[in-house]
Amino acid sequence: MEAYLDNSATTPVCKEAAAAMTVAMTTHWGNPSSLHEKGLQAQTVLDHARSEVAKKLSCREEEITFTSGGTESNNIAVFGAAAALKREGNRIVTTQVEHPSIAEPVNELEAEGFEVVRLGVDSTGRISAGELADAVNRRTILVTIMAVNNEVGTVQPVEAAKKAVRAAGAPAVVHVDAVQAFGKIPVKPASLGIDILTISSHKIHGPKGAGAIFISKDIRVLPRYHGGTQEKKIRPGTEPMPAIAGFGAAVKALPDVRAEYDSARRLRDYLLKELGKLNGIAVNSPPDALPFVTNISVLGVNSEHMLNFLSQRGVYVSSGSACSKGSRSKVLEAMRLDEERLNSPIRISTSRFTTNEHIDMLVEGLSEGQKRFLRK
Amino acid sequence: MEAYLDNSATTPVCKEAAAAMTVAMTTHWGNPSSLHEKGLQAQTVLDHARSEVAKKLSCREEEITFTSGGTESNNIAVFGAAAALKREGNRIVTTQVEHPSIAEPVNELEAEGFEVVRLGVDSTGRISAGELADAVNRRTILVTIMAVNNEVGTVQPVEAAKKAVRAAGAPAVVHVDAVQAFGKIPVKPASLGIDILTISSHKIHGPKGAGAIFISKDIRVLPRYHGGTQEKKIRPGTEPMPAIAGFGAAVKALPDVRAEYDSARRLRDYLLKELGKLNGIAVNSPPDALPFVTNISVLGVNSEHMLNFLSQRGVYVSSGSACSKGSRSKVLEAMRLDEERLNSPIRISTSRFTTNEHIDMLVEGLSEGQKRFLRK
Repeated sequence: MEAYLDNSATTPVCKEAAAAMTVAMTTHWGNPSSLHEKGLQAQTVLDHARSEVAKKLSCREEEITFTSGGTESNNIAVFGAAAALKREGNRIVTTQVEHPSIAEPVNELEAEGFEVVRLGVDSTGRISAGELADAVNRRTILVTIMAVNNEVGTVQPVEAAKKAVRAAGAPAVVHVDAVQAFGKIPVKPASLGIDILTISSHKIHGPKGAGAIFISKDIRVLPRYHGGTQEKKIRPGTEPMPAIAGFGAAVKALPDVRAEYDSARRLRDYLLKELGKLNGIAVNSPPDALPFVTNISVLGVNSEHMLNFLSQRGVYVSSGSACSKGSRSKVLEAMRLDEERLNSPIRISTSRFTTNEHIDMLVEGLSEGQKRFLRK
Repeated sequence: MEAYLDNSATTPVCKEAAAAMTVAMTTHWGNPSSLHEKGLQAQTVLDHARSEVAKKLSCREEEITFTSGGTESNNIAVFGAAAALKREGNRIVTTQVEHPSIAEPVNELEAEGFEVVRLGVDSTGRISAGELADAVNRRTILVTIMAVNNEVGTVQPVEAAKKAVRAAGAPAVVHVDAVQAFGKIPVKPASLGIDILTISSHKIHGPKGAGAIFISKDIRVLPRYHGGTQEKKIRPGTEPMPAIAGFGAAVKALPDVRAEYDSARRLRDYLLKELGKLNGIAVNSPPDALPFVTNISVLGVNSEHMLNFLSQRGVYVSSGSACSKGSRSKVLEAMRLDEERLNSPIRISTSRFTTNEHIDMLVEGLSEGQKRFLRK
């Protein structure tokens, strides 16, 4: 048996998504831009997927732009909003704990002359709504804050962003990277005051290679790539159809979000109870984190060593973000963890396919790993 | 029976690609960036695909960057080369008949201040190597020319580009959009003096959602998107794995390029012979075009009417590029076709799965369409 506990990095493709992909690639393989019947078939698959995503986000279908994934969505959001609003101001407000696909585009814009405010976080990884309100001024054109942190699961007060924008009389649009939140907590951009929202297929049991951006009908984003007229020119190029079909099916297959959450909380509580039996484990995720993600430090054991040891036992976790192999976690640094914890983080992330037995395998592996690496 | 004759728009996914996709999404679904066994499995799939593409292009594996498709590859090539070389000069040389994913990024760069020379074509759709040589000067940083035109199949003298660059002592890199050429004529960038080359999966019986760029180890391209460290940061973001696996398998399944070419020529010759039995057909593709693509005009019959008529009979062709639904062909305009031909183009594009029976269905459909739409 294997215990896959790295669902924040990627998830197994659910059977509904795999079935939809198979149909999309073996039967409805046309180009959605083609005007003949094979094209219309593919267009129907595309429309269907868009409708599923829109339904889940309680938005209009025309507010959904499909992309090749979360990184493309975040790049389009940041560069696209900045380009559309650059005449209105030059301040961007973000946080110190964003995913690199937000942090690095923002760094680029800073190098181009934008003024960037990066909000710090407290020891739970959370920004302060008050500091956010103070940071937004009349020259602010973009506020971009992740909904749920990918390394520790901290839920950010994203609903405070629009309030801050309104209070400041800023022209800013609010972007939220909801890659880790979508399917796990209710994400309704309109009611949260979100103008642009990023989601990804492969974090919710869809295939890699598809993502989406919600762009409110009231705002404008300029494209970063240019070419065909697909996706209202926001994301030109032939649509990654089998992946989009799988994404749509995975969205449709998402269980009720509250039942999912409760189930994840039970798993997390079980995990914490079992971890409590070991010595030398520090829990880095706050108690009110999204229960799908639990970041711990195995004190005195280098993350990579533990990760490899667990992998040999069929237990798969990560040391942080899959997107930054090897380097030290900026998120945990921003939370001001001590040196010992910074060297030994392990991220455990569950999905609806995780069971207590997987947790048992992990905890046993951690215990054996401690014996191996901590022996004098 | 259906006759799919729109293979320049997209191709059916071959069984080898579909099988590889299925394995990639049901078994090896890990994130290649993950350090554990599930990640390594996916990394192996990725490495394998890269090796197939590199072998086919006779280049090094590290010279292949996977992308989400041809449009992304072309955008990275144009913007990335211009950004890397902007201190060396500001002239870009291209043609009037490029795909929108080249033409539009070049337009953007022109708006940013680059000087752009767009070479015209003769009545066969071909640029002049002499004009190319004249257009390249010491301030030229990028020459971008497609290998084979997507609408008419004209083969461009891309090997003249590097010679022009050398003769002018220009710092320019040579980019070639080989989306329509790859798998159909030998494309070896090193021997053709090509520094950057674009190819796409779904034009060679792979899935939509994957493409690649060859970037010579001797040159540098700056990324357009920023985020993770994947694909040497040229194309950050989790790799579209099932699609890349399918792409690799489709490349591996490509038949010998000369046998393919001969077979396409026999089909084309048969098509032209059968078309010769109809009145009022003008052939827009030159005799030395790539035989996989034949552009004709059905004089007096609007393209969209004919296309819909044929579609109802299960015959699928296009009126030009699938990427520019509805608007008039810039390529045929550049070839200075008369008004009548410009209103009635039909592009017939074959693949290794096309048979003489498909051609018969098409020609019969065209004949019936003429009766329907030309009756007084």
